[in-house]
Formats: sequence, structure tokens, C-alpha cells
Amino acid sequence: MAGRLVVLGGGAAGMSAASAARRVDPTLDVVVLESTGFAAAGLCGLPYHLAGLVPEAEDLVAYPPSYFRERRGIDLRLGTEVHGVDPARRLVHHDGGRPLEYSALVVATGGRPSTIPLPRPDRPGFVVRTVEDTVALRALVDGGTVRRALVIGAGYIGLETAEALVARGVSVTVAERIDRVLPTTVDAEVAAVVEEHVRGHVDLRLGTDAIPLAADRSFDVVVTCTGVRPAADLLADAGADTGPGGAVLVDDRMRTSLPGVWAAGDCIAPYHRVLGAPAFVPLGPTANKTGRVAGTVAAGGDARFAGIVGTAVVKVFDLEVARTGLTLAEARTAGLDAVAADVVSRSRAKYYPGVRPLHVRVVHEPGGRLLGAQFVGVEGAAKRVDVVATALHAGLSVDDLADLDLSYAPPYAPVYDPVLAVAQAAQRETAAAR
Amino acid sequence: MAGRLVVLGGGAAGMSAASAARRVDPTLDVVVLESTGFAAAGLCGLPYHLAGLVPEAEDLVAYPPSYFRERRGIDLRLGTEVHGVDPARRLVHHDGGRPLEYSALVVATGGRPSTIPLPRPDRPGFVVRTVEDTVALRALVDGGTVRRALVIGAGYIGLETAEALVARGVSVTVAERIDRVLPTTVDAEVAAVVEEHVRGHVDLRLGTDAIPLAADRSFDVVVTCTGVRPAADLLADAGADTGPGGAVLVDDRMRTSLPGVWAAGDCIAPYHRVLGAPAFVPLGPTANKTGRVAGTVAAGGDARFAGIVGTAVVKVFDLEVARTGLTLAEARTAGLDAVAADVVSRSRAKYYPGVRPLHVRVVHEPGGRLLGAQFVGVEGAAKRVDVVATALHAGLSVDDLADLDLSYAPPYAPVYDPVLAVAQAAQRETAAAR
Repeated sequence: MAGRLVVLGGGAAGMSAASAARRVDPTLDVVVLESTGFAAAGLCGLPYHLAGLVPEAEDLVAYPPSYFRERRGIDLRLGTEVHGVDPARRLVHHDGGRPLEYSALVVATGGRPSTIPLPRPDRPGFVVRTVEDTVALRALVDGGTVRRALVIGAGYIGLETAEALVARGVSVTVAERIDRVLPTTVDAEVAAVVEEHVRGHVDLRLGTDAIPLAADRSFDVVVTCTGVRPAADLLADAGADTGPGGAVLVDDRMRTSLPGVWAAGDCIAPYHRVLGAPAFVPLGPTANKTGRVAGTVAAGGDARFAGIVGTAVVKVFDLEVARTGLTLAEARTAGLDAVAADVVSRSRAKYYPGVRPLHVRVVHEPGGRLLGAQFVGVEGAAKRVDVVATALHAGLSVDDLADLDLSYAPPYAPVYDPVLAVAQAAQRETAAAR
Repeated sequence: MAGRLVVLGGGAAGMSAASAARRVDPTLDVVVLESTGFAAAGLCGLPYHLAGLVPEAEDLVAYPPSYFRERRGIDLRLGTEVHGVDPARRLVHHDGGRPLEYSALVVATGGRPSTIPLPRPDRPGFVVRTVEDTVALRALVDGGTVRRALVIGAGYIGLETAEALVARGVSVTVAERIDRVLPTTVDAEVAAVVEEHVRGHVDLRLGTDAIPLAADRSFDVVVTCTGVRPAADLLADAGADTGPGGAVLVDDRMRTSLPGVWAAGDCIAPYHRVLGAPAFVPLGPTANKTGRVAGTVAAGGDARFAGIVGTAVVKVFDLEVARTGLTLAEARTAGLDAVAADVVSRSRAKYYPGVRPLHVRVVHEPGGRLLGAQFVGVEGAAKRVDVVATALHAGLSVDDLADLDLSYAPPYAPVYDPVLAVAQAAQRETAAAR
């Protein structure tokens, strides 16, 4: 065999890996096995297809299958389920024919939505994870028979899904087991700002067990958005080391503990630079980057993944909600001596039309080590979080953050940008506590 | 004398200095001498007052004079012109009475618009630098007699002023001596994007001597926006060391070369971290921060200014134009071995409604040292530049920039943020050149 790279999973990570490997070694036989009918689909766009903002599901696809097959010479096999990996014999067992031999294997099997046992199996139940899931839910909504929907889970996918259904004229109830929205995204104090906004759009039931609620016959559809777990079974069964949440452990070159096997995307726990440990944070940019590293290295090239700092943003109706690093709760769970400072700053100069409040929290150690930040506002949150993400990557302190030379013009920021304002608040509170 | 801090200039820097000094030492006698009738006015907002977006000039004032006098115990004297500083005798000569003795002096006299000799002194000529200037120009426009205006200079104040006049229904000609817009803000290639946009709104004459043009009787008003020089004469006359553009040289505590004299704001050349030398970059955030440092230290406290990295943003009609660090031209003038990489990325996921192109240039050394970046687009430029500003502050490389964990959601960015995309382009071009 001249060398065959097999990639399991044709999502962002898998297709990035296949494309990177092809660039490194044009002689390599590159095969991608994907269980669904879509490859290189942007799953983060699924709620916007449901909402009708993205007319066709195909619009979410970065490149069509023909592009990968013809232009990149990648043997992309859609609708192919994989049953097992045999790392000793370097074989992949799948339902598309005889076992496939590989010289290098990249596992990019992604995430799997967690589910809960629901009453009334006669009524349509959905998740929003694959293109097929979403197309099916959208078809039902398009049919005009969905008047009331129950969304289970007020995490970011639950709120995006609720927003999409509301945009389609559906009356939505969101039920969340925890007593607040976005429980894994932001701290409770920040979530309270989001909660108030969400209540203007949906019937929000916090601290609520959804199972009895789902028995209510007035809901025409139930959508379960209770989180994603790593689809790591294949590798775990083959003996690979796993870590947080059961995700596959990898080094900075995306090597698993199994020889000849790399992994990337939502099934892994990459290194978190602020935690100093692996973390399961399944998001699109990391999938793309780790896929690229895995494919490059598996094909004989050199690349390293620098790690994540836990940056995320979500649109929740008219709000931008962003976070990076660790929340106060996460920092304390990790055993850090963490405190938080909060400000309500502004998105523009106070006299400039359209100025909106911007809530900012910075999380730090009393000694000045920066740990994270959270932003909520109608504008100015989504990309401002990246300043703190960059500061975290570079290991800057709260004092450094207050010193940054950030852009100012009245339409875009106050003269002391909200990032500077929250850093100054943290400095003042630290000084006062001494 | 129990100790008197005299501050020359009641702008952002002067009032920041006075307020900071008051916090450090509540027993200090703090006197501010300001030549105009306004203190703590946000000069960056003047074009928006002219445009009518900010109804009252008073809206631009951070705090009214009574606030400083009554709440902060600052002896603020408006309309007071200063004629000289005698550092040996610690005296300030002014037109409001006998010479004022000081124990510490903070000079925050700001900038002064450069002017050119214009024909037809009978016709109203303006600058947009003080509240009074702008109120007078706005009154003329409000009067309804201004149909055509000539704006001299296509730097950022010229373009902001042109936009404001267009918003008031005035037909505007912009004449610029150099053959491109924003000559001190962005490189020519980036300016070309802005130029095309500006031509949709005004009659733009590049590479044009404005003096003969100003003789044209069809212009009802001429506004000169040909740059700002440091108002450093008082200190230079008193013997203080000056540097780039004639601005006052200070150390990181805002000490001038004269004992007992600090300086801050648009009259100084603060340390530029990327240049590794002082630079004259008169902007609001630096005025506020250096004022605070000067006032704190002059009153006996401790503070340091970390320096600038040359970040700026300007709204030009519907475009956001932002830059940080050094342009390619600036880097080469500084003797650096600099190259640039350019991409046209997107402000949102390509399938998300409202997505717009975002032009990004990164400037770097072939070895990977990051030197600067420029962004132009209808959205997504203004605050994205701050990621690179933070990277420059921290000394990150182009490779580091490509590794950043930046926020992603389809409404706010492509999965590879434009910052990552331009860093990758720089990496590819560097690799190809080897």
C-alpha cells in the first residue's frame, strides 16, 4: 500500500484533516467516511437554516462533495457508518464494504447530542445536530402545523433553536433543569441579564424538569438541546486514552495514545491554556484548527495546536453573549483563588446615537492573574471578547489589560473601552481589598 | 503654600490629571487654566455635533464645570489664556490676574490645527478643533446659506467633517495634497478601498493644491483639516526637551525634562511600543490615560504609562477604517525589513444574511515579528483591530496571531476570523518566499 490516510467523519475537523493531508502529500490515498449525507457542513449555522435566514441546507456546506472529490482528490464516502477500529491491524470496519486498511487514521467523529427519555413517543421529537435533523424539523415547521414547541435546555443551542422557532412564528416554551440560562457559558450574574431578555420572547421555565412538561399535549413538537458529548466510543473501544467528559486525549500534534491514530474536532479534549489541562469545549474554530493539525501531522508534515482559551459567542435574540477563559464558577471549581469585577459600560460614546449598555465581567486572581471575561449587550460584545482572549493567550495580567491601546471613535466605543473600564474596576477592587 | 498643582489645559488630559491629583491628595490646591469656554469636552465628537447627531455642544462634555468645582474641589478657570511658564520660579503667567505659583505643573495644552494661507479672507474659513470652532460652523450651516463647502485635507478629521457636512445636505469637495485619502492612517492599497467609497459621497480631488481651488467663489465655506501639531510652545520656550513633530518628551511617569513639570495629552510624544521610540499620535484615549498618570505622579502618587501601539479607528461614511502598530510605509521609514499580507475576508459566516467583505492587511517582518494591521469594511473592522493591538502590546508573532482562540458564531465572524485568515496568509507568503 502506497499509504492511505483514512479519516472518520466528514465534518469541519475531518474535511480540514483530509485537505491538509492532501496538501502535505499529494501521493497519499485519502479516504473520508461520513455517516450522514453531508460533508463540510457548518453545524453552527443549523439554527439559522431552521429560522429561514439561510434558505437552503446546502448553503451551510463550505464546499460541495464534488469539490473534494474532483479538485482535491479526496475519496469522500457519504452515508457510510463505521462500526469499529482495529489499531493493531490498522483496519476500519464499516458498512460500505470490506474493512479498510490504513497507514494513518484521523478520527473526527464529532459530538453526539445527549438525549433524555421523553413521554409521548407518538409526537415528533428532534435534536438540532446534523443537517438531516434540522431539515426534518424545518420541513415540519414549513408545513404550518407547529404552533407550540417545547425546547428542552437553555444552553446556547437551546436558545438559538428557540430564537429560530420564534422567528418562524412558533410559540416556544424553554425548559431548563438548572435555575438559569446558559449554565455552561456564563456566570449566574451575567446570565440574569440574558434571562430578562429571553423572557421577552419565550415562556422560560427555569429549574424545571422537562419530562413531565413534555407530556403536555399542547406542544406540537419537542426539541432536545441538552448538550453534546464526544462521539469517542470507537476510539475508546479501541483502547485510546480519554479524559474530560469522555473525550479523546491528544497531544499538541493531535496524536492519540494509539500508534498511527490522530484525533480532532468535537470528539477530543484539547489543551486549555488557562486551565493548564485538557478540556472538552466542542466548537467550530477548534474543530477546523485541530483537523488541520491532525491531517498535516498524519500525512508526515509538522504542525502544532497552541490550545484553546475557552472563547465562545452566541446570539440570543437581540443580545450578543460572549465569554473567554474561565467563568468565576469554573475557576473556583478548578481550585483557583478567583474573584470577579463587573461594570456596565457602553458600546459607543455616551453622546453618540444608538449607544447601548454593555455588561462586562472580568475574572482574575487577587494577585492580578487574568482568568477570563464575559460580555453581554445588544452590540459590541461578540468581538470585544477577543481582546481578552488574546490577552489570555499571551498571559497578560489585569494591569496589562488596563494598559492596552484600544481603538476609539465615538461610533464604536467610549474613550475608555469597556475592556479598559472593567480592568480598572478590577484594579480598584483589588486595591480596596488590600 | 500648602502645595498647589496647576494644570494648563482643561481638555481630556488636563481634567484627567486634575481629577487624579485630587484623588491622590485631597489637601492639594488644584487649579486648571483653560483658554476656551469648555472643559472636559470630547473633541472627537465635534464632527457629530456638526452633523446634528449630537444635538447640543454640552452633550460632548464629560462633566459640567460645576461638577469639577463643587464635587471634586477643582479650581477650574475657563477663558484663561496662559502666556508663559517660569520653571525656575515655578510661576505661570496668564491673563486672569497675577502670576500663579505652583508646586507642581501639568501641561496639557493639547494640539493646534495646522493652517494654510487661503485666498478670499472675506469668506468664512473654519477648523474643527474646539467646541467654539464647531459651534460657529454649525451655526452657519444651520442658517441655510451653505450649499457648497471645500474641505481641505482627506485625513481622518477631513473625512469626518466632509461626512458631517454631507449629512447636513451640503455639497462637499475634499481637496488633498497627497494622491490618496487617509495618508497618515493606512497604506495606499488600503486607502484605495476607502477612496472608492468616499467618491460616492463627495467630489474628491487628490494630489491637488487647495489654495487655487479655494479661490473658487462657488464655495460658501472652507474648512481646513490639514492636521494637528502639538501646542508645545509654552514648554519649549521654557526649555523643555521636545521630540517628534515638536511634541514634548516625557518619561513613563509623564515627567518632562523640567523639574516639577509634567505633561500629558496631545502636546506630548509618548513611547510607542512597536517603534521603541517616542511618537506623536494625538488621540483621545492616550490623552485620558497620560493625563491620569501625570496628575497621579505630580500629586505624589505612583503610576506609569505603558505606551501606545498606534491604534486608531475612524468612521468614513458607511465604512469602518482601523489601524494599529505601523503601516508598511511607516515600518519601512523606520528602517524595518517589513512586508505585508492582505486578505479580503468576511464580517460574518458566508451564508449569514448581511455578510460584508472585510479587507485586512497585516504588516510584519519576514521572520515573523508582528508590526501592525489595517482593517476596512462596512462592519467588523473597528473593534477587530483591538485583537492585533493586544497582540502587539504583548509582543506576539504572526504565528501566535494565527493560533488565537477567537470567538465564532455565524452572525459575527467566519469560522476562521479575518484576523486568523490574514495571519495564515502571512504565514503562507513567508513560507513561499523561503
